Amino acid sequence: MKTLKFAVLPGDGIGPEVMDATLAVLEAATKPEGIALDFTHADVGGIAIDNHGTALPESTLEVCRNADAILFGSVGGPKWENLPPKEQPERAALLPIRKAFNLFANIRPGLLFKELVDASPLRPDSIPEGIDIVCIRELTGGIYFGQPKQTVTLEDGDVQAVDTMVYKVSEIERIAEVAAVTAKARSGRVCSVDKANVLETSVLWRKTVVEYFKKNHPDLELSHLYVDNAAQQLVRDPNQFDVIFTENMFGDILSDEMAIICGSLGMMSSASLGTDNNSQGLPYGLYEPAGGTAPDIAGKGIANPCAQVLSAAMMLRYSFGLDAIADRLSAAIRKAVEDGVRTGDIAFGKSPVGTTVMADAIIERL
Amino acid sequence: MKTLKFAVLPGDGIGPEVMDATLAVLEAATKPEGIALDFTHADVGGIAIDNHGTALPESTLEVCRNADAILFGSVGGPKWENLPPKEQPERAALLPIRKAFNLFANIRPGLLFKELVDASPLRPDSIPEGIDIVCIRELTGGIYFGQPKQTVTLEDGDVQAVDTMVYKVSEIERIAEVAAVTAKARSGRVCSVDKANVLETSVLWRKTVVEYFKKNHPDLELSHLYVDNAAQQLVRDPNQFDVIFTENMFGDILSDEMAIICGSLGMMSSASLGTDNNSQGLPYGLYEPAGGTAPDIAGKGIANPCAQVLSAAMMLRYSFGLDAIADRLSAAIRKAVEDGVRTGDIAFGKSPVGTTVMADAIIERL
Ligand SMILES: CC(C)[C@H](C(=O)O)[C@@H](O)C(=O)O
Ligand SMILES: CC(C)[C@H](C(=O)O)[C@@H](O)C(=O)O
Repeated sequence: MKTLKFAVLPGDGIGPEVMDATLAVLEAATKPEGIALDFTHADVGGIAIDNHGTALPESTLEVCRNADAILFGSVGGPKWENLPPKEQPERAALLPIRKAFNLFANIRPGLLFKELVDASPLRPDSIPEGIDIVCIRELTGGIYFGQPKQTVTLEDGDVQAVDTMVYKVSEIERIAEVAAVTAKARSGRVCSVDKANVLETSVLWRKTVVEYFKKNHPDLELSHLYVDNAAQQLVRDPNQFDVIFTENMFGDILSDEMAIICGSLGMMSSASLGTDNNSQGLPYGLYEPAGGTAPDIAGKGIANPCAQVLSAAMMLRYSFGLDAIADRLSAAIRKAVEDGVRTGDIAFGKSPVGTTVMADAIIERL
Repeated sequence: MKTLKFAVLPGDGIGPEVMDATLAVLEAATKPEGIALDFTHADVGGIAIDNHGTALPESTLEVCRNADAILFGSVGGPKWENLPPKEQPERAALLPIRKAFNLFANIRPGLLFKELVDASPLRPDSIPEGIDIVCIRELTGGIYFGQPKQTVTLEDGDVQAVDTMVYKVSEIERIAEVAAVTAKARSGRVCSVDKANVLETSVLWRKTVVEYFKKNHPDLELSHLYVDNAAQQLVRDPNQFDVIFTENMFGDILSDEMAIICGSLGMMSSASLGTDNNSQGLPYGLYEPAGGTAPDIAGKGIANPCAQVLSAAMMLRYSFGLDAIADRLSAAIRKAVEDGVRTGDIAFGKSPVGTTVMADAIIERL
């Protein structure tokens, strides 16, 4: 019997309740295929600060190391928001976990179903068929981790802070490969975003990407945009893109901009793939919703579980090679939404259902 | 007789034609007040590359040095777009001119008249009264100019590029002051945007801003957002902001995102103020439309001159202290648009007029 061994890190706010619902859906999707789930819960984020004094305890890392993938909820909330920015749960959990598992490739689908165009802040006539794009963000390089990163007092008494943005050809090539593979499974169009008119790292980025695609993926259609222009084009006409890919900081900004354009954060999933393979011979990865902990509705049983379920579907696909079940999960969610089963964030006139009813509706449609 | 001495750098594409129209409007607005215009034309951008072999010739810098302000058109176009990114006209003209005149404060109104909400890609019901915000961008610091900025071959043969983001307290304080003064003339609300959960420069930015406002502007309402969240909030509800202010790179991205949200780029103006005062005892500054050279319509006499006229109005206000005339120019533009006199980019059902008719309509309403 095939067994899926993964770590479950529900985190804070709505994290635990959407995670429970997701595990139920996941079990319903895998059991009939003779697949067993072997998951272990561990604390992360605010709850880990409370219970262990740190947002990412060693015991949690250990659980993750013993697994083939991490299913992550979301972290943070008002309780910890007065901590200094770098000690806040999201930052203090996510950056070290990305480093620990070399999670260099962040894949975020920008998906808005046609039925939900009212969730988007964009004019409905600009996205008549919804939105269907993907953002690939480099996640372990650039200005996030580059050294030096320090603050010093100058001779004249002024204080100066420095951050360093660094990219190596090898780092750029491996994320270019992820973008290429993603594009191959879609329309074959990739737009690389940089700021090559200002940054040395972007000049290297563009040159490397051009050469890498020419040599390894000459069949793909590669284009380039400056990041300021990309921020505009996303709003003007998101579907002009198919696969967008970019460095860490630009990806942080653009993928969040993309997420809001796609309407409900309750529907947005993500995968962060590592450089190493798991025991399945597939990429180790962390899978999490793009939205936050939604403290205002936490504990009420009304949060949308779809983003977490879609993240689990990405886990099945990338870390366990179970594409057919992943497809079935996505289709079941789409069907439930089409049938009008909707949590409050995507209700638009339908009478809203709670987290477990939504999950059950997905299960019924598997 | 008061004389306004400024440099006129029309640039490429629609630059020259909207500049001509603007000078006519400016003359009509100032002459009745007994004010004379003393301006000198100089080449910049693509045309300067063609005529002088460089996007910012020394002769042009000399014209600028002998003036109290620069009225700038726009630069670039298909003819030069195959140059390496750093040699392209926009980059090669703008970065050195910013450095030469210490243009550290970029002020961009995000203004969308109620009458033009159809120009915005956002749902009209989210901006019923149009949009009225301002973005203040630090323009001479950060990752644009920080050293080291280089590409090296590593021992293992890999190639590595580095950019350096640097901010000093003194640089942050002077832009904070511009944001504060701007907010005072408006609602008194300032949102400072940074990435203090990841960047040292942002930690220093936030700390400095908090202390500076507490000490010098305790009456203003200061808030903080991470840049990824700001990119979302701008799309979700732009009017939740009044004055946004941020560092160079974030400002590049967010101000362009703001511009597209405000609909027609043909209406978007900007000011870039220097650290030094001009012969009027007011800030030296460069004033330019936020939009580009619009090569597709260049030379056809149909470009919208409003952005250039509004930029000239900003020049009157900041570099010449002529607020009343600046207000009159803005009001005349608003009136013309209300009356349905519109170039093609903002026509929306009205029959479109050309550049000079639009300019004449503004003059009639002064
Ligand atoms: C919490 C923060 C460090 C993080 C980032 O900037 O990468 C977050 O914004 C994200 O995008 O996952
Ligand atoms: C041309 C480029 C260097 C410039 C910038 O990034 O500052 C432009 O995008 C701008 O915003 O004026």
